[in-house]
Amino acid sequence: MKTILLIGIGPGDPDALTLAAVKAIRRTDVFFFLEKEGEGKDSLIRFRHDILAEHATDRPYRIATGASPKRDRASADYRGAVEDWRRRRTQVIADLIDANMDDGETGAFLLWGDPALYDGTMQNLHDLIAEGREDIAFTVIPGITCIQALTARHRLPLNRVGEDIVITTGRQIETGDPAAVRNSVVMLDSRDAYMRLRDQTDLDIYWGGDVGSPDEVLLSGPLDATADRIAETIKAQRARKGWVMDTYILRRRTRPRDRD
Amino acid sequence: MKTILLIGIGPGDPDALTLAAVKAIRRTDVFFFLEKEGEGKDSLIRFRHDILAEHATDRPYRIATGASPKRDRASADYRGAVEDWRRRRTQVIADLIDANMDDGETGAFLLWGDPALYDGTMQNLHDLIAEGREDIAFTVIPGITCIQALTARHRLPLNRVGEDIVITTGRQIETGDPAAVRNSVVMLDSRDAYMRLRDQTDLDIYWGGDVGSPDEVLLSGPLDATADRIAETIKAQRARKGWVMDTYILRRRTRPRDRD
Ligand SMILES: C[S@@+](CC[C@H](N)C(=O)[O-])C[C@H]1O[C@@H](n2cnc3c(N)ncnc32)[C@H](O)[C@@H]1O
Ligand SMILES: C[S@@+](CC[C@H](N)C(=O)[O-])C[C@H]1O[C@@H](n2cnc3c(N)ncnc32)[C@H](O)[C@@H]1O
Repeated sequence: MKTILLIGIGPGDPDALTLAAVKAIRRTDVFFFLEKEGEGKDSLIRFRHDILAEHATDRPYRIATGASPKRDRASADYRGAVEDWRRRRTQVIADLIDANMDDGETGAFLLWGDPALYDGTMQNLHDLIAEGREDIAFTVIPGITCIQALTARHRLPLNRVGEDIVITTGRQIETGDPAAVRNSVVMLDSRDAYMRLRDQTDLDIYWGGDVGSPDEVLLSGPLDATADRIAETIKAQRARKGWVMDTYILRRRTRPRDRD
Repeated sequence: MKTILLIGIGPGDPDALTLAAVKAIRRTDVFFFLEKEGEGKDSLIRFRHDILAEHATDRPYRIATGASPKRDRASADYRGAVEDWRRRRTQVIADLIDANMDDGETGAFLLWGDPALYDGTMQNLHDLIAEGREDIAFTVIPGITCIQALTARHRLPLNRVGEDIVITTGRQIETGDPAAVRNSVVMLDSRDAYMRLRDQTDLDIYWGGDVGSPDEVLLSGPLDATADRIAETIKAQRARKGWVMDTYILRRRTRPRDRD
């Protein structure tokens, strides 16, 4: 058997690692890195190397690097493009395992945040096993998500009394009903989707870029008064280092300027 | 100034603590324990003592214990009862701080899971400061939530393509529209609310009791075929040790028996 560990490493603060993640790192023979070409996210790779330098100190380990396939973002068929990307990514992972693991060894992926939240790797491994790879077993080690990091830094309870919490994407905010947003966490927004809701004058926004990292920026306030500042901050971060990872909470005010 | 740390300790596995939580524990002078009387949850208190025995080893510390006020669960006025409970709890915390902390000291609450997810303590501290307690400053240290523990153990990605994730309570499942449930995480269900949805034959359930702890039980399958087994398991755990903490995901099947 080959054992794969999907290790959540949190959203950018090395101290967000759990003790279980550290233990998992210490029993890994080979770490798999999927590198996104030309995205200028070298610091995300460096973050993983730093983690290994700090924690993988008990025994020797290897690193095997594969090229993360790109999703076809131009495709009109969104679901089809996602399925295709998923298939190609599964193949890259299978190749990495075959070329770099002996029977009885332990391999690991260091996954950003938590492995269950908008990360395809768990699904890739389910797909591999469904295709008949009975020599592969995998275990998931939870990590702090960017949502916990965001609420901690804003010191904002995620739930309110008698109301659902919705986790969604920029894509869905862009097409959904603005009036239906009451308490939504928005991830994966590369298109400033919050701009679309700025005429909803009773929405507050709690925004965070690269939360937990040295580049962290936090902004909050009434959406209509804060949206421009957020857009400028995103633009400035992108100009400075090529990218920013941001998450935000959109919350409808129940009373004027009340947190609860 | 008095510094209060709200430290997320994860949902029951001592290894779910983050390195940041361990560091926070190591610089705390006094830990505040809010004990729920007569709920037989001694093991939850013991869990916290074990964490301190393992990690608070650098310097002496004190423990101060207060009685957690009870919420009036019989009240017809749900919101009123929650508000009243919140006020009384804020007072208990103020008294604990006043009786046990000197200026310049650091106090801490060890909060189950993550401090932002269905835990009143953050709101209590906001209320205290809003009441004029300018000598109090607080910081939140994120923790692994029971949701991450549940998805990790079921190896279930939380999101699906093009669909929101909803986090809700047993109370809301009991009164909401069953047909609207597509991908919902249900917490705080003391009333077997999933039973109400068992006639929805295309729902799957992924259930976990005391996930991450030695008492962990996991069950999953089509809701209609699994609901009875879950109810029996809850009953058996309650009979054995007085309580069970459970969370579940209700997910509408898109194709027969597909995870995605
Ligand atoms: C592919 S998803 C991975 C999420 C990750 N698995 C987690 O649990 O946080 C990437 C998205 O997560 C959010 N994100 C990740 N890290 C972040 C951070 N440090 N600050 C703000 N948002 C972050 C952004 O919305 C980004 O588009
Ligand atoms: C008052 S809330 C606190 C949640 C906690 N702050 C968190 O982040 O997980 C308590 C509820 O969390 C869920 N829960 C907490 N620990 C759990 C565990 N180990 N397994 C399953 N559910 C758990 C149950 O739904 C329980 O009713």
